[in-house]
Amino acid sequence: MDKKISIIGAGSWGTALAVLLANKGISVNMWSVFEDEIKMLNEKREHVHKLPGTIIPENVTFTSDLEKAVGDAEVLVMVVPAQTVRQTSKDISKYIRNDTIIVSCSKGLEEGTGLRMSEVIGQEIKNAKTVILSGPSHAEEVGKGIPTTVVAASEDIEAAELIQDIFMAPEFRVYTNTDVVGVELGGALKNVIALCAGISDGLGFGDNTKAALMTRGITEISRIGVSLGANPQTFAGLTGIGDLIVTCTSMHSRNRRAGILIGQGKTAKEAMEEVKMVVEGVTTTKAAYDLAQKQKVPMPITVEAYEVLFNGKDPRQAVYDLMMRNKKNEVEELDAKWL
Amino acid sequence: MDKKISIIGAGSWGTALAVLLANKGISVNMWSVFEDEIKMLNEKREHVHKLPGTIIPENVTFTSDLEKAVGDAEVLVMVVPAQTVRQTSKDISKYIRNDTIIVSCSKGLEEGTGLRMSEVIGQEIKNAKTVILSGPSHAEEVGKGIPTTVVAASEDIEAAELIQDIFMAPEFRVYTNTDVVGVELGGALKNVIALCAGISDGLGFGDNTKAALMTRGITEISRIGVSLGANPQTFAGLTGIGDLIVTCTSMHSRNRRAGILIGQGKTAKEAMEEVKMVVEGVTTTKAAYDLAQKQKVPMPITVEAYEVLFNGKDPRQAVYDLMMRNKKNEVEELDAKWL
Repeated sequence: MDKKISIIGAGSWGTALAVLLANKGISVNMWSVFEDEIKMLNEKREHVHKLPGTIIPENVTFTSDLEKAVGDAEVLVMVVPAQTVRQTSKDISKYIRNDTIIVSCSKGLEEGTGLRMSEVIGQEIKNAKTVILSGPSHAEEVGKGIPTTVVAASEDIEAAELIQDIFMAPEFRVYTNTDVVGVELGGALKNVIALCAGISDGLGFGDNTKAALMTRGITEISRIGVSLGANPQTFAGLTGIGDLIVTCTSMHSRNRRAGILIGQGKTAKEAMEEVKMVVEGVTTTKAAYDLAQKQKVPMPITVEAYEVLFNGKDPRQAVYDLMMRNKKNEVEELDAKWL
Repeated sequence: MDKKISIIGAGSWGTALAVLLANKGISVNMWSVFEDEIKMLNEKREHVHKLPGTIIPENVTFTSDLEKAVGDAEVLVMVVPAQTVRQTSKDISKYIRNDTIIVSCSKGLEEGTGLRMSEVIGQEIKNAKTVILSGPSHAEEVGKGIPTTVVAASEDIEAAELIQDIFMAPEFRVYTNTDVVGVELGGALKNVIALCAGISDGLGFGDNTKAALMTRGITEISRIGVSLGANPQTFAGLTGIGDLIVTCTSMHSRNRRAGILIGQGKTAKEAMEEVKMVVEGVTTTKAAYDLAQKQKVPMPITVEAYEVLFNGKDPRQAVYDLMMRNKKNEVEELDAKWL
């Protein structure tokens, strides 16, 4: 395993992955667009803002020179915010080698187009060979060496297995999956349900309500996924329900925190201002709503989230409207029955 | 809806279900084997020990006379501990009418036989028409009217729909399902995973670890379920992952509490003595281990739980052994591939 590896983006997750690889004895080069971030990392060997307490080993180097980071990398781990993936890919495309494998770690759908991250990368980097790395993985815990499981997904199973080999460690178990559509949709759409779980908590509802939202949430994510060619089993896995569980039960999630504020009576706009960071789930709710309309697939929780976020519907009413829909059988056909 | 309904067992869940029905205007008769429990319920109209704070409406009556409770009931809701279901069924069989529907609310497998609750009931009550009521539902929250979803499962869809109609309310949504095997196995085997989630918490591991245990846990439950004829989709639903989520994230769960103590270094025996109540998951781990052997289905988490509980294996070693098994693809065939 002597592949040259660069990590593009020095946030908490990028830093945690660098530390994981470095502890396995793999040298990595980390890139950030921010000069002062690189300076801080070089001086402190710790990301004092985003992953405090985790020391970065000596075999991690830092650079703000994108050509240097990309030019000789055989594996490029992209860990940038979802809405910056297009621009970053465009910038990378100038320097990237033909045979470099791109590991995409961003979760979300592109605003406006609704495209998945690997689709955006594919549009900007010709013949990109992309592997998705996703799953229930708080960076803080990976930085501390707490046992974690993730999935490396690619239509090219050999590429997925290579990434599995690179990242697998005693405290970091990597499964492969060839269902890229399912893995990316699960990672993106979970944020809609995390917002709703937050709203439920903000309304003062309980664990029963949240478990219902999560379970029925993954059911409707699975439904839209299957209509787009995903394997329903993927949504029962680590990148589906697994990631949803971690996101809905953690205060680390900005989406959940924004939801709590909305449940407590704030408007969506006020909540986002108070959380002071991009709330990916709001963008994704719009994209998911549009997808559901286009695919003619019922997504009742997504529709109610859309009404609350964009049309000012009372969230308590939204929950009761969900509860009092027509009586249903639980196990619906995941095929074209409702089309 | 003027069916005569009796509830057999006056624990927290039986009481919560009585209150739910009574608030819908349905009169119910509650039975307990304990005279002093009936006296307390009659005097206080509140189960002061098991569901404090929830007032029981006037249209709930109480009795310790089993013949009276069973004799004229058209619907019998059985809410007794799993290991007492056989004896209770035997007692009931003397008085029950031919056409009475039994609603089984007990979760577990019978010690020694490994039978599901509906199988036990079927052995003791000839031609029993049984509907399983299961899902993520803390009694405390249902007692407070917090939105909750459950499943009514029966091979007889009309019986399931009747129970759906009886229990459905603005804060209590009931789905139907015809997969009795899947619903009962999910409700029983989740306790094994809840024990493991507790052990993980007791070891000081994190949300990533717990989400992994829950996700891979439901995968192996699904695997054994499918080998016994269950529908894999059931395990992705409310009685599978939904109930597992509620159990693994709540301090109400005795299984999880016992697990925490074991993770902190206590033996299984010490942990059970400290929790001072039946820890259903310990019995179920043995039953699940035997089932896995018999069906030749790999259940790695169950095997490690068995080793920790019955052979004194160090739980930390068990977690690392799980993490370092052979590399795998996530989406396995749920069919006979490994048989």
